[in-house]
Amino acid sequence: MRKEYLFTPGPTPIPSKVAAVQTEDLVYHRRKDYHEIYERIVGNLRPFFGTEQPIILITGSGTAAMEAAVANVVSPGDRVIVVRSGFFGDRWADICKAFGGMVRSVDVEWGRAVNPRLIEQRLEEEGGKNTRAVFCTFVDTSTGTVHDIEAIGEVVKNYDALLVVDAVSGVGCMEFRADEWGVDVALSASQKGFMSPPGISVIALSADAWRVCEHTKNHRYYFDLTRYRENYDRFEPPYTPAINTVRAFDVALQAMNEEGPKQVFARHERVARAARSAVSALGLSVFPMNPADVLTVFKPPDEIAAAELRDHIYKKYGVFFAGGQGQLKGKVIRIGHMGAVTSIDILGALGALEMGLADLGYDGRQGQGLTTALEVLRNE
Amino acid sequence: MRKEYLFTPGPTPIPSKVAAVQTEDLVYHRRKDYHEIYERIVGNLRPFFGTEQPIILITGSGTAAMEAAVANVVSPGDRVIVVRSGFFGDRWADICKAFGGMVRSVDVEWGRAVNPRLIEQRLEEEGGKNTRAVFCTFVDTSTGTVHDIEAIGEVVKNYDALLVVDAVSGVGCMEFRADEWGVDVALSASQKGFMSPPGISVIALSADAWRVCEHTKNHRYYFDLTRYRENYDRFEPPYTPAINTVRAFDVALQAMNEEGPKQVFARHERVARAARSAVSALGLSVFPMNPADVLTVFKPPDEIAAAELRDHIYKKYGVFFAGGQGQLKGKVIRIGHMGAVTSIDILGALGALEMGLADLGYDGRQGQGLTTALEVLRNE
Repeated sequence: MRKEYLFTPGPTPIPSKVAAVQTEDLVYHRRKDYHEIYERIVGNLRPFFGTEQPIILITGSGTAAMEAAVANVVSPGDRVIVVRSGFFGDRWADICKAFGGMVRSVDVEWGRAVNPRLIEQRLEEEGGKNTRAVFCTFVDTSTGTVHDIEAIGEVVKNYDALLVVDAVSGVGCMEFRADEWGVDVALSASQKGFMSPPGISVIALSADAWRVCEHTKNHRYYFDLTRYRENYDRFEPPYTPAINTVRAFDVALQAMNEEGPKQVFARHERVARAARSAVSALGLSVFPMNPADVLTVFKPPDEIAAAELRDHIYKKYGVFFAGGQGQLKGKVIRIGHMGAVTSIDILGALGALEMGLADLGYDGRQGQGLTTALEVLRNE
Repeated sequence: MRKEYLFTPGPTPIPSKVAAVQTEDLVYHRRKDYHEIYERIVGNLRPFFGTEQPIILITGSGTAAMEAAVANVVSPGDRVIVVRSGFFGDRWADICKAFGGMVRSVDVEWGRAVNPRLIEQRLEEEGGKNTRAVFCTFVDTSTGTVHDIEAIGEVVKNYDALLVVDAVSGVGCMEFRADEWGVDVALSASQKGFMSPPGISVIALSADAWRVCEHTKNHRYYFDLTRYRENYDRFEPPYTPAINTVRAFDVALQAMNEEGPKQVFARHERVARAARSAVSALGLSVFPMNPADVLTVFKPPDEIAAAELRDHIYKKYGVFFAGGQGQLKGKVIRIGHMGAVTSIDILGALGALEMGLADLGYDGRQGQGLTTALEVLRNE
């Protein structure tokens, strides 16, 4: 029997009861049944986004929410600061440029978290008043790094600039407090930490960001959030949403709130620590200096090509890991463990890694990875 | 037992085997399994779009594809002609304006199809060379009207302007021949004629449109179709698609091709004719002059409010019809019968209408609607 296991940093595995609800008859989106689902989703997202602001669902990929963020706050000629520390930081820069933003970068070596002082320095250089927004990434999955959004918020709050955070990866798995940390625009998507199928992106704006929104001039329609606000008081979307995916998202969020946000965060922290310990115990190095708890990025042994190892593990054991992106293409392997991933699941994934390494002749320490992981997982 | 029946012009009912595939494990979108699905979908869409051009899937509502159409061919200051003959014609105008287009309208009374000569006249007035594109709607579901795209194409081909058609409703149910009719941009969505869940929009561009696309200057990123072309040769999407919905779409399209496009069109024509005959036999008037085969829009009796009749039928019989939009709000009832709707289904819907009318005291001709419908359906 061949079974397949997806350990990528999105999409992530879907619990069966989340998947099952998609087979139910469609709920018409301009009627109470749908409004109630939307309202419940917003309520269940609040503890994960840490916000009391409106939370809006947009049918689209995570990139759709990134564009919604830019389209609603950046007018052509606006100065913006973009933290470029990985593949998704580069995407921020690309979208801002597409909307006519004057991009000033804070360049960070891939694998390192940004030092908030660099953002402060750049804000000073630009004159804080003249900067529309600072764009950064919570977890850049290309490097496996988590950035200290709270510390960045401490800096940005001293300036007029909005703080916009791509939290596509991270939210739902690690603590995120948009309101407390001074995040003006926070966004995510259904297929990552929220253990749902892809197709729904999520965005929340602060009161300051909503004010900027009203004066933003550029070419937008589908992503114009004021349209989503129009009937938000009764939780009605402006366009036909991905109804089945929304229902799956609803069931997933209910399950996450039953588990409890703190427990969800603790589970991810434990699984991540087990994965990192195992990788280190196998003599391999974890790539990021400040690793996130939602994926483990590491370098394969010098003598084994990353692609060969990934292909072998997938073919022989059915376990699929992601490869590197951008400048890390071919250089790292990325094990995603966000969403519906438990201690038991990660042991299987790490076991596949150990067996794959041994198959390809790695002079390994067979069993040491799993032994170390067990210690971490059992001591909790 | 309460059962509910959705007879709206989108979303439409989903066959159980289409719904069921959504529960299967996610297919990773950057691997062969997904590429094969995408390729098969494109092949199965060809007979319904009538095009040999690339067909691109975008995660989003139908409006997303409308925006993709505008964003890729309209630069600020471009002159565009918009046929405004219903709610969705108005949406074309709104999106074109949002992208800086100089909108010239061809205004048509709601319920009438546009006379192609009016488009010709407007093109002459504007000077054909100076018009970037003509925007129109195949079936505007707000009025239930089908427009003669072939005849419009005959006119537009004599000018430099592109012909852009919102075929969100209609494609998949009624014959549409983009290439033969000279349609440069054709678009639709999964949740209408394609009997799939909402979440996927579809767009196809002619070679001329692709050429315009390269020089279009405006603010776009997610909808920039050149990004979707980059890895189209191996059927890989640029952003994480709504994978489960794509799989449902794939199963639905296979079923539609097994039935055969001609048979699908004939089924819709028959069902529509039965619905119109029944409505007329009940002494009510079909609203559009040139009715489409995908929905039946009619006026309720003067003495019964549309909303009251719809609510009553929904509460008592579980059958849900749509109300009017825009200037027709409260004035008409819209029975959607696109996608997975058969002769048997429409009889149930029409029966609910007859019973609802009788319940509310309509001095009816009880049974005459269904009797007439049976004649139409049985004689085929």
